[in-house]
This record gives sequence, C-alpha cells and structure tokens, in this order.
Amino acid sequence: MGILGATGAVGQQFIALLGNHPWFKVTWLAASERSAGKRYGDLAWRLPVDLPADIAALEVDTLQAGKGPELVFSALDSSVAGDAEIEFAAAGHTVVSNAKNHRMDPLVPLLVPEVNADHLALLPAQKKQKGWKGALVTNPNCCAVPLAMALAALRQFHPTRVLVTTLQALSGAGYPGVPSLDATANVIPYIADEEEKIEKETKKLLGTLSASGSVEMHPMTVSATATRVPVINGHTESISVGFEKPVTHEEILEAFTAFVGEPQKLRLPSAPPRPIVYLTQNNRPQPRIDVERDGGMSVHIGRLRPCAILGHKFVLLGHNTIRGAAGAAVLNAELMEHRKAHS
Amino acid sequence: MGILGATGAVGQQFIALLGNHPWFKVTWLAASERSAGKRYGDLAWRLPVDLPADIAALEVDTLQAGKGPELVFSALDSSVAGDAEIEFAAAGHTVVSNAKNHRMDPLVPLLVPEVNADHLALLPAQKKQKGWKGALVTNPNCCAVPLAMALAALRQFHPTRVLVTTLQALSGAGYPGVPSLDATANVIPYIADEEEKIEKETKKLLGTLSASGSVEMHPMTVSATATRVPVINGHTESISVGFEKPVTHEEILEAFTAFVGEPQKLRLPSAPPRPIVYLTQNNRPQPRIDVERDGGMSVHIGRLRPCAILGHKFVLLGHNTIRGAAGAAVLNAELMEHRKAHS
Amino acid sequence: MGILGATGAVGQQFIALLGNHPWFKVTWLAASERSAGKRYGDLAWRLPVDLPADIAALEVDTLQAGKGPELVFSALDSSVAGDAEIEFAAAGHTVVSNAKNHRMDPLVPLLVPEVNADHLALLPAQKKQKGWKGALVTNPNCCAVPLAMALAALRQFHPTRVLVTTLQALSGAGYPGVPSLDATANVIPYIADEEEKIEKETKKLLGTLSASGSVEMHPMTVSATATRVPVINGHTESISVGFEKPVTHEEILEAFTAFVGEPQKLRLPSAPPRPIVYLTQNNRPQPRIDVERDGGMSVHIGRLRPCAILGHKFVLLGHNTIRGAAGAAVLNAELMEHRKAHS
Amino acid sequence: MGILGATGAVGQQFIALLGNHPWFKVTWLAASERSAGKRYGDLAWRLPVDLPADIAALEVDTLQAGKGPELVFSALDSSVAGDAEIEFAAAGHTVVSNAKNHRMDPLVPLLVPEVNADHLALLPAQKKQKGWKGALVTNPNCCAVPLAMALAALRQFHPTRVLVTTLQALSGAGYPGVPSLDATANVIPYIADEEEKIEKETKKLLGTLSASGSVEMHPMTVSATATRVPVINGHTESISVGFEKPVTHEEILEAFTAFVGEPQKLRLPSAPPRPIVYLTQNNRPQPRIDVERDGGMSVHIGRLRPCAILGHKFVLLGHNTIRGAAGAAVLNAELMEHRKAHS
Repeated sequence: MGILGATGAVGQQFIALLGNHPWFKVTWLAASERSAGKRYGDLAWRLPVDLPADIAALEVDTLQAGKGPELVFSALDSSVAGDAEIEFAAAGHTVVSNAKNHRMDPLVPLLVPEVNADHLALLPAQKKQKGWKGALVTNPNCCAVPLAMALAALRQFHPTRVLVTTLQALSGAGYPGVPSLDATANVIPYIADEEEKIEKETKKLLGTLSASGSVEMHPMTVSATATRVPVINGHTESISVGFEKPVTHEEILEAFTAFVGEPQKLRLPSAPPRPIVYLTQNNRPQPRIDVERDGGMSVHIGRLRPCAILGHKFVLLGHNTIRGAAGAAVLNAELMEHRKAHS
Repeated sequence: MGILGATGAVGQQFIALLGNHPWFKVTWLAASERSAGKRYGDLAWRLPVDLPADIAALEVDTLQAGKGPELVFSALDSSVAGDAEIEFAAAGHTVVSNAKNHRMDPLVPLLVPEVNADHLALLPAQKKQKGWKGALVTNPNCCAVPLAMALAALRQFHPTRVLVTTLQALSGAGYPGVPSLDATANVIPYIADEEEKIEKETKKLLGTLSASGSVEMHPMTVSATATRVPVINGHTESISVGFEKPVTHEEILEAFTAFVGEPQKLRLPSAPPRPIVYLTQNNRPQPRIDVERDGGMSVHIGRLRPCAILGHKFVLLGHNTIRGAAGAAVLNAELMEHRKAHS
Repeated sequence: MGILGATGAVGQQFIALLGNHPWFKVTWLAASERSAGKRYGDLAWRLPVDLPADIAALEVDTLQAGKGPELVFSALDSSVAGDAEIEFAAAGHTVVSNAKNHRMDPLVPLLVPEVNADHLALLPAQKKQKGWKGALVTNPNCCAVPLAMALAALRQFHPTRVLVTTLQALSGAGYPGVPSLDATANVIPYIADEEEKIEKETKKLLGTLSASGSVEMHPMTVSATATRVPVINGHTESISVGFEKPVTHEEILEAFTAFVGEPQKLRLPSAPPRPIVYLTQNNRPQPRIDVERDGGMSVHIGRLRPCAILGHKFVLLGHNTIRGAAGAAVLNAELMEHRKAHS
Repeated sequence: MGILGATGAVGQQFIALLGNHPWFKVTWLAASERSAGKRYGDLAWRLPVDLPADIAALEVDTLQAGKGPELVFSALDSSVAGDAEIEFAAAGHTVVSNAKNHRMDPLVPLLVPEVNADHLALLPAQKKQKGWKGALVTNPNCCAVPLAMALAALRQFHPTRVLVTTLQALSGAGYPGVPSLDATANVIPYIADEEEKIEKETKKLLGTLSASGSVEMHPMTVSATATRVPVINGHTESISVGFEKPVTHEEILEAFTAFVGEPQKLRLPSAPPRPIVYLTQNNRPQPRIDVERDGGMSVHIGRLRPCAILGHKFVLLGHNTIRGAAGAAVLNAELMEHRKAHS
C-alpha cells in the first residue's frame, strides 16, 4: 500500500498509524520532487512516536500515477491533490484521500463509516461516469467528522439547526503551520475556508442516497465559527442543536451512548469500541486528558444540557489528525477492504 | 478612597488603575485578617507594572465598615462580599463593587455606563428600602460587560436571541486560579456559574427602568457556553444574534462604529475614545495583540457575517480584568462622581 | 502491594505504572483522612490514561502502619512522609519511597539501579541500627536521577566538576502546583530546595560503599541552577562536566551508548532497553517529542560538544514523574524483588 | 531617518520605538522588492501597539543606497545585510545595524553604550581603510547585550570564566520563526549559531581599544548553551562567573546596583534610569512580569549566590527585541548623535 504526500504532517500520521497495521503494509511512499529520491528516514520526522525502521528504509518516489500499489492513501496538499488524485484514480488506483479537493464532488463518497457507509454505493457510477479504472473516496474535514458522528447518533430525531463554535488545535494547520508568535497565549478567531467546509460537508455526510444514485444533502442548517487555540491535538466544538420535534435530555444521552456503526459491527481494526464516549464530569472532555483515548478514534462528548434557543447544547472533542484525518482515511480503507473481501 | 479586598488579583488591578487617577486617590486598603497589619508593599505583587511607592507604604487595615473613606471599591471574594458590602453600604460608604453577590438584587444597579447609566436612578429607592446611609453599585461579570456593550449598540434593532460561546483567559480565575497542569495546551469546557451569570446579567443590563422604579429584564433569550483557554488576559466571545426584524450587515457595522455612551459624552477619565473598536482584518480581534488597546477599556469586535440560523454572527474581545472587572468599577465610580459634582 | 499517598500526582503515576505490572498488584491504597473511606474511582483522576477498573473499586484506607501489604510504595508529601515512613518500616513494611525526607540518611539507600545497585547492602545495617522490622529505600529527586545516570556512564573518567542548569516541567510541582498565571509564557528561575537536592543527592548516588558499610560521597563538585518552564512532562538539563584527566568526545559518546546496569542485565520489567539514548540530531532531545519513549524510563542525551571551561557539555532530558519519581521507585522495588527471589 | 528591512519583526520593533522619538523621525522605509511600492500600513503589522498613522502612510522604497536619509537603521536579514550595509555605508549613510554580518569586523564597532562607548573611536579608521563616505556601527546578539552589560558592571574584578545557559524567547526567531508545534509546551535545546555569537561577541564588547586603534578581545573564556522556551519576549540567562581574585557577594551586588554608563550620564532619550535592576525576590526576574519595565531597556538580575565551581552565579533577563535588538541600535544612534552634536 502506498502514501501520496508522505512527508507532510498528515503523511507522517498515516505512517504512525499504518506502521503496525494488521491488514495494510506500507511499501511505497510518494512525494513532491523536493523529497523524491531520498531515504524516508533521512527526512524530518516530527511525531512523538518512533518511525518504524522498515519504513525509514524506503526511498521516496515521485507522484507517478500507475506506478505504486493499487491502494494509495492521499495526504497531498490541496494545491496538488486536485489533479494528482484524478490521475491516480484514472490509472487504476483506489485513492483514499484526506484532501479537500474532491469531497463535494457528487460522484465521490465523502465517507465516515459510522455515519454513511452506504455512500460507498456511489462508486460504480463514479467509475462509469468518470471513466476511471480505479476509485476515489474522501474523508471529511477534521471538524466535520466528529460533528457528523454526533449528529448521526441523533439522526432519528431529525436535527434541523446546528450552531457550532470550534476551538481547534495547532496540528490542524500542518507543519510549519501556525507561527508560535501567533499561537502562544492567544486565540486566532479565523481559519481559512474552515467554516464553509464544516457547514457543507456535514450536510453531505448526513445526506441520503437517492434512487438516482446521488447524495441528497441533509436539509438541516449548519452555522459555524472556527477559532484556533494553543492546543496541540484535539478540536473542541461547542454545539447547539435543534430538532424537528421535542427531544428529551435522556433520549439524546441514550442515543449517544448506544450509537454504533458499521466499523463496530464489522470489528474493523481501527474501529474504536464506542464511536462516542460520553463523559459525565462537568469539566470534560479536555484535549490534553481525553484526546488520545482509544487511539484517538473515539469522539468525546460532555456537558449535554438545555439550550434556551435551539433546544440542546453539548461540548465535543475529536482528535483532528487521527479521527479527523489519517485515522478517518484508514477506517475508510478498512471498510472498503472488508466489503471487497466479502463481496 | 479605599479598596476592599486589596490583596487579591482584582484588588491589585484596582491599584494598578488607580495609582495615577486624576480624581481618586488610594488612601485606604482593607483585606482579611491574614493580611491586616502588614505593609501593602510587603505582600506578593503579581502584576507586570510596578506598585506605586505611596500605595506600597500603606498598612493594610481590616474590613471594618465605617472606618475608611466614603468611597470604597470592592474586590472582595464572593465568600465574604455578601455581608461585608451590606455592612459598608449601611455604614454610609458608597460601595462600587465587582463582586457577584448583589448584582441581581432588584434595588442594586448592575451598571455599565455606556449601556444603562439611567439605572443609577435605583439608588434613592435602594437607600430608602434598605435603610442604608450609603449606597451599593455593582458591575457585571467579565463576559457580560462586553456582550452587553455590543448588544447595547444594537438595541435599536431589538435583539431577541443571543447564542454565545466564550473562550476565557486564565486571569479571569484569579490567583492562584487555574493550575498550570490543567491550563497548558488545553481547553477546559466549563467555568462554574459563568453561563448563568452571562445569561441573566446581560438581560438586566439591557433591561428598562419601569415607572415603578425597578428594572424590567430585557425579553431576549441568551444561551451561553463558557470555556477556559490558555490566554493570559482577554475573553473572546463567538456570538450569534437574531433580531425582531431583518437588519442589514451595514446597519450593524454602522451601529458598532457609531456607538457612544455617557462616558464618552462626559469625557470620563477612564472612558475609551470608542467603546467598540471594529477591526476589519479577517483574523481579529486577537487577545495578545488587541486586548491592551485604549488601556483595556475598549471592546473589540470583528468578523461580522451572516449566521444562517440566527441572522448575524461576530467575534468579540474584552479585557476581563480591566473592562470586565476593575476598570468597569472605576468607570462606574467616575460616572457617579460626575453626577454628584453636577447635581 | 500498597501505595501510601495514593491520591496525589505521584500516587496517580504509581497507579498508572502498576495497573498492569507483571509482578506487583495494587491491592491497598492509603491516604490522608480527607480521602479515607472513599472509593478511589470517585476521587479526581487527572492522568491522560484511564484508571484501571479494579483499582477504581478500591476503598481508600488511612495511613495505618502494619495494616496493608508488606510492600508499600510511598508517594507521600514531605510534610507527612518523615514520620509515616518510619512507622511503616518499623512495623515491618518494605517502604519504597519517592519522598525527600530520608534520602540523605546514611542508613537509607538512595537508589538508582543502573547507578548504585550495590547500595542496597546498607539494608542489614539499617535494620539493625534502626531496629526496624521492615526496610526503607528511597529514589532521588527528579533531576538527580537522570543526571546521576549520565555521570554513572562517565564514572570511569572521574568527573570532578558538574555545572547544571535545569529547565523543569510543570508536573514536577505536583497538583495543583504552579498557578497557570505564573507558568504561561514564562520562566520561573527558582524551585525551592531543588538546587541543594541536586547537588547533594548526585554525590550520594555516585558515592562508594565503604568497608564500614556506609556511603562515602563522591568527591566531585556539583553546582546547580533550577528553573521552571511551561512544559508538561520532562526535565531538560544543560550540563557541563570536567574530568580528572582529558577525555575525548568519542570516549564519552561510546560510554553513553554502551552504558547498561543491573536492570538491563536482569531484564527487570520496567528497565528500558538502553538507560541512555543518545540522539544525534542537533536540536534534540525535546520534551514533547522524546520524553515518553521507552515508557519514560530512558534518559535522552544530545548535543555533546566541547565546553571551553569544564571540558565537555551536553543536554539531557528525563521524564520527571516516571524515571524521576514513580518509575524510579518501581524499578527499585523490582531490583529488590529480584534479589529476594534469587537470594 | 530611514529603516532598512522595515517589514520584518525587528523592523516593526524599530518603528514601534521610533514612532514618537524626540530626536529621530521615520521618513523613509526600505525593504525587499516584494514589499516595495506598497503603502506600509497595508502590510501585516504584528505588534501589540498601534502603527503610527504617519508611518502607515509611507510608501515602501527599494533598498537603494544613496537614496534615503543620512541615518538608516538596518533590520535587514543576514542573507542580504552583508552587501547592502556596505553599499549604504559606502554611499554616505550612517548605518546603525542589528544584523550579525559585520559585527566581528575589526573596523566595525560592536557597540553597547553602557559597555564600550569608547569603541566608536574605530570610526575614523573604518572610514579611511574601507573608503566609505559613511559609517557602519552594529549592536550585538540579543543574548550578548545583557550578558556584556552584567560583565561590564563586574569588569573591575576581572572576570576570567563565564558559563551561560540561555532560555530564549520565541520573538528572537523573528516571524514566522518557530512553528507553534515545535514551541508549544516544549524546549528546543538548540539555536543555530547562537552559542558562537554569545561566546565571541561578549569578548569583543568587553575588549579594549589598543594603541593601534583596534579592539583587543577580552581574555576571559565564555561557554554558552542556547535553548528556546515558549516565552514571548525576554531571554533568561543562567550565568556562572569566575574572577581572577576572590570577590565577595556584596561587592558584586554593589557593582550591579551602582553601574551606570554613558547613556545615563548623557541622559540619552532611550537610556533606562538604571542599566541593571537587581531584584531581591528569590523567584525573579521573570519574563512575563519584568521584561517590559523601563521600556524594555533595563537588564534584570536576580538570585546572586555562590557557585561551588566558578565562584558566583546569578540569573539575568533582557528584552531580546528591545534591549537586545532595535532598542540597542536606537541607543547606539543616540550616542552617536549626541557626540556629533557636541563635537
């Protein structure tokens, strides 16, 4: 299996997650011309876990479609992902991408296995209409993943309005990312394009597959404000939500704790035991304490209480580089691999 | 003029603001038994400005009502402010308090001079019904002050629903306050009692003085989520607001920039030139860059844009220990002093 | 096995390390009257790993000597450890302590198994002269542990002068510890008693057991400056060292990487594979990236280079709550357990 | 007066310091092609003080020697300062530079007015031998400035050995500088070239002007370790110093507090009242509390105590972008201006 964009922050996170994976083995690393030809272990490794020796020994290849293995994860920067991912999919690769470029394409599944595993049914039409030999599947923005998971648990109550303010970690900006003079002891109340992504992608994730084989957006309204805070990993979201009809506190609590999806039923290797962990202490979830639980694949929720305006409010925490990026893509690939093996 | 609770974090901020004040001179410092009898300059001073030498030389007195000067600022902890402030007001002092205890008392003005200077008209009834020789005036919670100022600028449009998520600075918790192991690289999504204070006090601040001489709460609904972030000074608020009738972006912008109140008209010493400073850069306001402007007495607003749910949304920044605490009380005292001098 | 002072920061670290230990099982938790009688899981747990369910279910007992199991780890605060540890040792417990109180007692081994495993030979004399049924063994200060390990690797070259400046993590001050207003974006150039502990304990650790059965301090001179920096875990030390005779860069490097001690030879469960990990990148070790490697039990060293004054200088990093506290005590207990089993 | 490299971090600090200067008026801003032609106020301003309106209105010029005013401050990056500063000096400008490039040139004064005002005597020889119509004067590295000031106060005791470990602020790396993912809750034990600069520049600063008109390096030995810590402004230095003959604690303390230099005698506008402020509290100086005192131009010292190895040790704090960069250059220019006016 290969990784496109293996040298960046998300690329490194892919390697950290896949170094010991029971199904996938990293055998091919591709990146821009600048890194191509170098031994991967000679490039700057910045994660607090050690780089596996066999991956360190790999030579970085160029981004040449058709060359690497069939399955490739894309951690490409959006400045190159647009064209490159199409080339790889066209050439026969299954591209499991974290890039934003094709997420809203009507023929590309925007997938969170606990939320909309059925959207994979878009792939035959994708293949046909795009004329690709391979396929392209994407995972959402780092804030949209956990938000969509929380809303999927509540889907039965028909959410109509979702107002969210995010407090996002520094690792979400990649490396070098946010200058320390901007980040230290500060809040930056703006992240380019983030609010639009959260608002749109959440509606596609919860959308339904129509008879005609396309995704119909969920009709709810989402309004987002995105801020950056000096946290290393873990996006916190302050969420207010309104429903079509009155729902009780207990019904929501029960829905959160009872929630499971395909990954749990299929026991996929990266599936957390519970997709949503509800914490009862009144000052949780907290990024520094909670974000790494279950390998960073659970969404943590706390402080469920009435919202005088929309109905209910709560606080959510998701690991942005794992559940919100590399881990999301790995889980997507595991679901696809399982489907392939059992089809 | 005196300070009750002179040794705590807010007490120190009072001294920093009043050390050079054109109207008021600090001549009396009172605190708990633990500090009484000591030279103020021998106690721990923690602000990044130097303690004035004449104040350092003062001996700390006990909290004995009737003993100090007529005007006293109260920076007392809520555990003692309840009774102590009543004793001082009863004994003839004018108590200008930052404590939360009496803020919601129907006979006690909860005052922000730009917002509700007319609420000072409660004082004659207070004197009569309480039987006090003196008076008690309070300033609101550190998040409610700037929120009420923003809403006062928009009062003419009749705000009906206000949804706010705060990102609050560490100095808001006093000293020693938040342990560094909780604060560092973390978000704590809970501050005890804070959400209730924001929701209630904002409605009293924007309330109207009825014919019968009491404050009628403003009918809008306020829903707050309070979080703590690793910032030293400056509370950021992500605010969505809805109005009775449609209002345009330009009308709101114009209302923010045109807003002035009594302190500006009367040129009170601590009045900022503009109570609201609107910043046009898309990544502002930021606590580390903006919070100290105009001596920390301005409210900074930015990112005004449509909210798909409530109508409009924006980001606000207020200096929590100055505009949200000690500076708020000083401005209250200046307004009262001016009224006295011109009555 | 039991833990004295189970509710504090070091007590929690003991539980995190021992929850899954192959030799030791936590069956008894003791703490001050304030916590006694409560279920351990109902007290505040602050570590980013989950509290094991079987330990959560334990009821906290009082600090009653003679009551718990034979082996007890002491995470007691120094204000109570002095008397309490003597009572437990006298009553027949083997007390493996992290407290500072008895470290410099000539009859109490101050133990780092890689450095001075032979100092355990003090125990028979301790038993006899103290009249204790049990025993007391201590581990050093969190900065002295890794410093002594680095110097032990160089012992053959006869270090004579050691000048060290520490940059210590917040977790070293326990909980609540350093107020966030002091810690955030700041350096505090003072930690009470720390410099004296580093200077004295390092000399005892490297001291030799004399014929008469007491420890003779190592004759080197140690001069320390201790500072606090806003890091969560991991004490960094900037060290200059001089030797009796000239030593080459290569000899030191070789000594660091070749260094092993009793724990490695005996394959004790908590022994890191290499006690000293030398990092060749010029900007390492760094607490955030390196401190958790090998479960926090390795000492990381980097930047070995000439010191124009003393001869050689380098930078060292040790995990203060693991290798410098709870993990140090666990390794001490493992060494003692092994000796007992093989004697 | 002009500023070369006006758009970078140090360039902005020059503007903040010179916006209101009694002698100098900023009339010309020069920068790289990228910014040339733009209105200065349209470029990103990142300091927490407002950009003066008259300077905001200036159009940025290219780095064209001979074009701007006679006096120019250089905040140029070292990648361009080498040639550019020579061109400006050759063309008749008096270049007062913060760049590192020419600091160790035997004909270029490396100047701290309190330390070696007499080194300005190099200028006639510089003019003659270089064939320049103008002149070039430099200020030292941000750590070398305060270290040299502390040593200058002790010069009479003949320091022979100086061992220093620095804990340097983020602003020392400019903008964007250190990525926040590297800086947050971390220590980076390396700053490129920093240790060499501290070791060499300190010896030149304390050097003596020989009969032949060149600077003879001070014979002391300096050994430095430089680290980066998550502090915004203010470099802390842990310093041990040895002297030719025994010196008492009191003699050093007296020397620190009695120290004054040319700027104080001449009452230069940027001169702090006392170049060295000795703080008696045992946990000071601290960057967040002390660094801005006296406009950032004082050096703060504390914790003077015996060093068992070198004799004495203490902790020092200097404002790296003011006393260690832009403020240092401004003071240099003030000294030169005063000499010119009184010659």
